[in-house]
Amino acid sequence: MRLSRYFLPVLKETPAEAQIVSHRYMLRAGMIKQASAGIYSWLPLGFKVLKKIENIVHEEQQRAGHIPMLMPTLQSADLWRESGRYDGYGEEMLRMKDRHGRDMLYSPTAEEMFTDVFRSYVKSYKDLPLTLYQIQWKFRDEIRPRFGVMRGREFFMKDGYNFDLTKEDALHAYNRHLVSYLRTYERMGLQAIPMRADSGPIGGDYTHEFLVLADTGESEVFYDSKVTDISLGKRDIDFDDVAQCQAVMDEFTSLYARTDETHVEAEFNEVPEDRRRVARGIEVGQIFYFGTTYSDKMGATVVNDQGDHVPVHMGSHGIGVSRLLGAIIEASHDDKGIIWPEGVTPFHCGIINLRQGDDAADAACESLYSALIAAGLEPLYDDRNERAGGKFATMDLIGLPWRITVGPRGLKNGVVELTSRKTGESVEMPPEQAAAKVVEIYASL
Amino acid sequence: MRLSRYFLPVLKETPAEAQIVSHRYMLRAGMIKQASAGIYSWLPLGFKVLKKIENIVHEEQQRAGHIPMLMPTLQSADLWRESGRYDGYGEEMLRMKDRHGRDMLYSPTAEEMFTDVFRSYVKSYKDLPLTLYQIQWKFRDEIRPRFGVMRGREFFMKDGYNFDLTKEDALHAYNRHLVSYLRTYERMGLQAIPMRADSGPIGGDYTHEFLVLADTGESEVFYDSKVTDISLGKRDIDFDDVAQCQAVMDEFTSLYARTDETHVEAEFNEVPEDRRRVARGIEVGQIFYFGTTYSDKMGATVVNDQGDHVPVHMGSHGIGVSRLLGAIIEASHDDKGIIWPEGVTPFHCGIINLRQGDDAADAACESLYSALIAAGLEPLYDDRNERAGGKFATMDLIGLPWRITVGPRGLKNGVVELTSRKTGESVEMPPEQAAAKVVEIYASL
Repeated sequence: MRLSRYFLPVLKETPAEAQIVSHRYMLRAGMIKQASAGIYSWLPLGFKVLKKIENIVHEEQQRAGHIPMLMPTLQSADLWRESGRYDGYGEEMLRMKDRHGRDMLYSPTAEEMFTDVFRSYVKSYKDLPLTLYQIQWKFRDEIRPRFGVMRGREFFMKDGYNFDLTKEDALHAYNRHLVSYLRTYERMGLQAIPMRADSGPIGGDYTHEFLVLADTGESEVFYDSKVTDISLGKRDIDFDDVAQCQAVMDEFTSLYARTDETHVEAEFNEVPEDRRRVARGIEVGQIFYFGTTYSDKMGATVVNDQGDHVPVHMGSHGIGVSRLLGAIIEASHDDKGIIWPEGVTPFHCGIINLRQGDDAADAACESLYSALIAAGLEPLYDDRNERAGGKFATMDLIGLPWRITVGPRGLKNGVVELTSRKTGESVEMPPEQAAAKVVEIYASL
Repeated sequence: MRLSRYFLPVLKETPAEAQIVSHRYMLRAGMIKQASAGIYSWLPLGFKVLKKIENIVHEEQQRAGHIPMLMPTLQSADLWRESGRYDGYGEEMLRMKDRHGRDMLYSPTAEEMFTDVFRSYVKSYKDLPLTLYQIQWKFRDEIRPRFGVMRGREFFMKDGYNFDLTKEDALHAYNRHLVSYLRTYERMGLQAIPMRADSGPIGGDYTHEFLVLADTGESEVFYDSKVTDISLGKRDIDFDDVAQCQAVMDEFTSLYARTDETHVEAEFNEVPEDRRRVARGIEVGQIFYFGTTYSDKMGATVVNDQGDHVPVHMGSHGIGVSRLLGAIIEASHDDKGIIWPEGVTPFHCGIINLRQGDDAADAACESLYSALIAAGLEPLYDDRNERAGGKFATMDLIGLPWRITVGPRGLKNGVVELTSRKTGESVEMPPEQAAAKVVEIYASL
């Protein structure tokens, strides 16, 4: 993309309403614009990152064998009356009547809809296991929306639902989700620690939240520092292998890691003192096995191999897709702006032309731009007739991980500059080598 | 995908509520499930086609230089009061109040939101031309939703908005949209004829609808049969070239082609009698230049090169993304089921194992399956332990363009069967050759 033809409305001023750094930078970098309280328009740069995150979530869910589909945002109140949640949900559920006076609502989650789809079609244990999911807009009418996309009212969420014959099978689905979530976050450059969570009114021991450590997190977290040494890395996981998924679960959840909701001081004190950490975290996902709660209420049964009708064991598993943009920025920025991890960056590499209109500089930039595109990457070429200082400030603010700077003086010596946004380090090299280096970095992800 | 692990709830019975063939087949092929009147859940197969269509629309819009972003589905009533449409829109606009009693609505279209984004950031003619678009869920509370996704209440739509300094520039944007839409439909295997449309209360000569000919279309259309001989084909279009885009516009719109809303009998009678056609059509898109209607009302101005503040010239341009699934099926089916054009098929090729459990047949299927995946295609392998007749019926119903049939008898002679869904023709050949042939077909698209 040539910046002269893009729509990137960066702001010089820090918007007064933004209390946390991710919100400030998303506004300043022209990623979002508030439309109403807790409701945002996704400007082109923000939309691009949102799609990248959505794609990673899709890829990792499908790798785990989960099947994508899509529920409508507006749902009839009837299904929610069956589960008892229509009256129970409270004011966070946005309700409305259609022109015929029928009660509707904007889906805040979708246990009922998925359970209904399941019971409409699946009759036999032979069709299990089954995990269906969607990535769809949801609405929760937060009384006090804040922190930009981190606690908005209209938000983009992945929600998945497993349907299994037995508790044992459902716990394998639970573990499979944990593994797929770990992969998902790692691909985004995030360390998200699974922490024992509170299962709320439904109860049960099987729920974990995934927390990204950040000073601005809404949750207080308590953990054994050894938990931050673990990562999934490039392990080849067979998602059908029950023992293998269980081993990952055990490895990631046996050390102490709790939010304030489940924290037990006495247990925490068993962690060696030098490894005890108290910090803040941002919740970016949750997995939850809840058994037959919904299948009982809504009659989601299958016939088992004995010919009996039995309710299916279910769980629901969510990732806050739009919230992740905020979480990533909270975890990766400096005082100049965002520092995108390579897995989610909106453009792979910036190209700055220090002297637009200079024949050699223009030609070198065009050639770099074409080379990167030919290699399947998306460069952002700042071809505007602006001062170099302004171009650098914009590039730093929007946070592309790599930048190639092209100027007449360097070109006389046959070199351009390749700069890492993260370290700030610059290395001079011939243009072809800079392009090759960037291609190599992304190929290795 | 292995069918044994997929969720494809095909129906044997024809659902009574479905009046037209696309609705019937979408229900029977397990693509959609009605959630409420005019509101559908997109089951995995339907979701897959929806995403393919969405991707084609994105690619062709971006090829034309248009920039994607995303507006929220729920919007504050205030903006719509500025344009005067809040009160004017009527009962098709779904209105609600949030928990603080603020008036909200579910966006039925987004002229106001895009105009607001534009006026918030763009101040100078130097930032023009600019075309922004989104593909997002919309809601129109149709009094009598019908025909499945063809006239639903919650629907997926691409809507784009151009902002230009002059009428002349805006008309180039109009032409650019026409060209990009023609490419879009052709990639989906559709012939969509641009027809002069009614500009409604806003007025003006510049609006065309794109109509797909189908007996079940809601519009009566009148056209010169020569118009169906024109196609864009593989022409290389420079979207910045004003004359080139104008030439395409002229070529596609100079022959008589009108809907009943703009039909003029006397003009139609000037078409040679043997070329006059009266038929029915499905509207799958519309382009519209409306000048400064919204920019005047909402104060969307830029400073021109004389230093004057002038309102921008705008147009809005839409494609009914979810509706397109219905239109494609209406245009391409037979009495056994859907016949997907290769550009939008949910899976590229079906593999039918005639004797699941036979070592040779299983091995040949696995090998074909792997070969197609390795070539970047998505096969659907029917690996269920079912009768051949049932497997064929399912494959025909869901309409994959190509099918490879593998059985022990053929394998003894070293062959499998490659079958075209469209022509029904089958050719025997060695498995490797069948895979190579399928790969070649998709590579040539």
